[in-house]
Amino acid sequence: MGEIQLRLSLAIFTVILLIGGTKSEEKYQYLIKEFVVPLDHFSFLSNATFSIRYLYNDSFVRDKSNARTPILFYTGNEGDIELFAQNTGFLWEEAERKHALVIFAEHRYYGKSLPFGKSTFNTSMPEHLAYFTVEQTLEDYAMLITFLRNGTERPVVTFGGSYGGMLAAWFRMKYPHLAIGALAASAPILQFPGITDCDIFNRIVTSVFENAYNSNCTVNIAKSWRVFETLGGTEAGKKQISDAFNLCSPIKNDADLKKFLDYVEEIYSNLAMVNYPYNSSFLAPLPAFPVRQVCFYLKDLHTTDADLLHTMASALAVYTNFTGTTKCLDLSAASNADESGWNIQTCNQMVMPFCSNGTETMFRPSTWNFNEFSEKCYKDYRLTPKPYDIILRYGGKNIDAATNIIFSNGLLDPWSGGGVLQAPNDKIHIIILPEGAHHLDLRRSDPADPPSVRDARNKESAIIARWIEEF
Amino acid sequence: MGEIQLRLSLAIFTVILLIGGTKSEEKYQYLIKEFVVPLDHFSFLSNATFSIRYLYNDSFVRDKSNARTPILFYTGNEGDIELFAQNTGFLWEEAERKHALVIFAEHRYYGKSLPFGKSTFNTSMPEHLAYFTVEQTLEDYAMLITFLRNGTERPVVTFGGSYGGMLAAWFRMKYPHLAIGALAASAPILQFPGITDCDIFNRIVTSVFENAYNSNCTVNIAKSWRVFETLGGTEAGKKQISDAFNLCSPIKNDADLKKFLDYVEEIYSNLAMVNYPYNSSFLAPLPAFPVRQVCFYLKDLHTTDADLLHTMASALAVYTNFTGTTKCLDLSAASNADESGWNIQTCNQMVMPFCSNGTETMFRPSTWNFNEFSEKCYKDYRLTPKPYDIILRYGGKNIDAATNIIFSNGLLDPWSGGGVLQAPNDKIHIIILPEGAHHLDLRRSDPADPPSVRDARNKESAIIARWIEEF
Repeated sequence: MGEIQLRLSLAIFTVILLIGGTKSEEKYQYLIKEFVVPLDHFSFLSNATFSIRYLYNDSFVRDKSNARTPILFYTGNEGDIELFAQNTGFLWEEAERKHALVIFAEHRYYGKSLPFGKSTFNTSMPEHLAYFTVEQTLEDYAMLITFLRNGTERPVVTFGGSYGGMLAAWFRMKYPHLAIGALAASAPILQFPGITDCDIFNRIVTSVFENAYNSNCTVNIAKSWRVFETLGGTEAGKKQISDAFNLCSPIKNDADLKKFLDYVEEIYSNLAMVNYPYNSSFLAPLPAFPVRQVCFYLKDLHTTDADLLHTMASALAVYTNFTGTTKCLDLSAASNADESGWNIQTCNQMVMPFCSNGTETMFRPSTWNFNEFSEKCYKDYRLTPKPYDIILRYGGKNIDAATNIIFSNGLLDPWSGGGVLQAPNDKIHIIILPEGAHHLDLRRSDPADPPSVRDARNKESAIIARWIEEF
Repeated sequence: MGEIQLRLSLAIFTVILLIGGTKSEEKYQYLIKEFVVPLDHFSFLSNATFSIRYLYNDSFVRDKSNARTPILFYTGNEGDIELFAQNTGFLWEEAERKHALVIFAEHRYYGKSLPFGKSTFNTSMPEHLAYFTVEQTLEDYAMLITFLRNGTERPVVTFGGSYGGMLAAWFRMKYPHLAIGALAASAPILQFPGITDCDIFNRIVTSVFENAYNSNCTVNIAKSWRVFETLGGTEAGKKQISDAFNLCSPIKNDADLKKFLDYVEEIYSNLAMVNYPYNSSFLAPLPAFPVRQVCFYLKDLHTTDADLLHTMASALAVYTNFTGTTKCLDLSAASNADESGWNIQTCNQMVMPFCSNGTETMFRPSTWNFNEFSEKCYKDYRLTPKPYDIILRYGGKNIDAATNIIFSNGLLDPWSGGGVLQAPNDKIHIIILPEGAHHLDLRRSDPADPPSVRDARNKESAIIARWIEEF
């Protein structure tokens, strides 16, 4: 089902907002600059250009005339670049340690880096979305780095998390002359058709829930779908669900019910991604290890549907109403303008199949149907996805010619299923964070950090130092 | 002067024709197949496709069901692919030794691989030439290799000479998951702005002439330009030149004179490129070490202009009339339809600066003027060259992240000035052929081969065997 793919692939974006919400004080300072890039790097059809934004901070650079000053370059992903700058504290800490120039580059088609301004996403103009690809984006970064190096041999290290980590890794693979190495945190570069099982994401989410408190948790969740669907079949049942979950807009029809079920399913994925070992916050704050909290509510087996319904509502309130101040639950509150950007990318190159067989996971059964997905992409954006573009260009699992990339993955992160967990050679470094959720290591140091995250950051810092030294 | 750049960059093409002419019997057999590729791999603007040709021979494959059968893949360059198939005997010999599948892929916009058929080169339709780039071509080959491997792990080795060698090397750099290694023969990947002196080509040609017999050779050639120009200033002088060189169309004006001088200059470059140690043939046959023959005529210093004029005519007849059967000298006889293809590539990405300071070379002084060159490109093709595209993408001299590439260069080859002559790491192999002209090692074994060429081929064969074994 295309739906579940679209919804889950949004998750990679959602978590950024989610992390973005943590500790909202704007700590890091920078200049906001612009850089002109060709609209299309790979043809000679037009000379059209536009500007991408980048953030610049040279306050850690000791000797500005030193042509060997390192550049730490965040390969911006799906969102406003300022969000990433504020939520990638590890890069700033590294810049201080390495006296490096800090650059955060904004991904084309996100934030304020829109090639056609307000009409960028106008799908009635096919040329507007045509250049929204990974290769065009990497080339933007290659040109920006060349400009920043200004003829010197400054060592550049790319940083990125999630899709940004994929870009950081791919940049090093394709432009090794411009980046001496890459830190690719929670980068699911293998989450593509034919090379990773489409149910791995949901199996990891399930496993996280299974191991959080006791195994009744997933039994209850698995059972809940039938309960929701049975209740949803009657007017009275729809009202029961709406009341139990305190929905702002009560469920009135099948479409509303579907929206509710999708929302609930997305909560589980999000919870797994941000299953951080300390309090963090999204729209409402979350406790440390939130999955454990949810599963604590679901520790007992329930005999009646009504009983399970109310227990589910309590459990999910950990996510939807941890502070108890949510007036009612708004199923569309989590939407964000830039979501449309990521949706478009899943409809051109970033085709990541998701499915669930319904017996090995706690989720509803769903299959991956590319044709259905492709039709929806055409309907929504006039785009026909190229599901094998990424594997063709970046090699899928065959990355043994790559060097100087750190792939870090948290075992609690469902995206780790599409991550690189085994080193193909001794110049690819694999760092596993047993207690890690989605790119936790990229965040700034926190007294509540568990030892595995501190260890991971220390290792990453040492490897980057070696790259710079050897350069 | 844009002129000299355009003219000299043609030389890379010319030599293929030239080698193409040697031993004209069509020895190698193959099936001619077609493969559909997107017109534009890098945008989602249109779904247009066209077919490229490739040549296929599986007669050396012992077990067709063996999913480890090597593929030797010639990355076609500027010309009809059948010419390359007939003139790359070393690939065929290797295929026999390695029981490999033979593939010669035709470069888009050459031969019969024209995206818009007969109107492909219609410059009033800018979209026709827009996708004539290195990246689009490499992507064609990536798709074809993926198709040929058909889901297996067949090891692929790319082969190429001259610009084809550049493509073979770049393919390995960018798609290491699809090619285990590359043999890049006489591939001047460094002949780009700012990283190689623009006079290196002419200095090597000069050096070859200087060392061929005695140093009077280059003194005479250097002096001849003034003689031609002085004579060309009068009606009588024009006639003298026309008579001495037996021109089919006598020189009537300054444009004719310029055409003549350019032609003579090109002969020197061509002679240096095909300064092979055995007889070979172009439009007319050439003797072994033809530069030596030319310089034998120019061994004495001449006191009068008329004297020098006639000696030059005799000397150049080595190239223009070695058999003595040329009725008259046709300055436009060497043109070929596909030359326009290469001219276009020099006007988009393959911007290779050439110049001559006029004191260290035997050539007329000329400077590299990018603006002038660029204006001519716009005038001729409505193209604005991107002189730094190639360096941005392929790293210029910074190729130390690359592995499994053999760069072979003949020291008698003027293109060696832009070749890779030093290994940045122990997985890049440099093979030097002291007696070698332009990609001599790619040709089939010949009893007249000098030891250095036999050695080079043996080394290349052993390295390729090791790649296949280690894979």
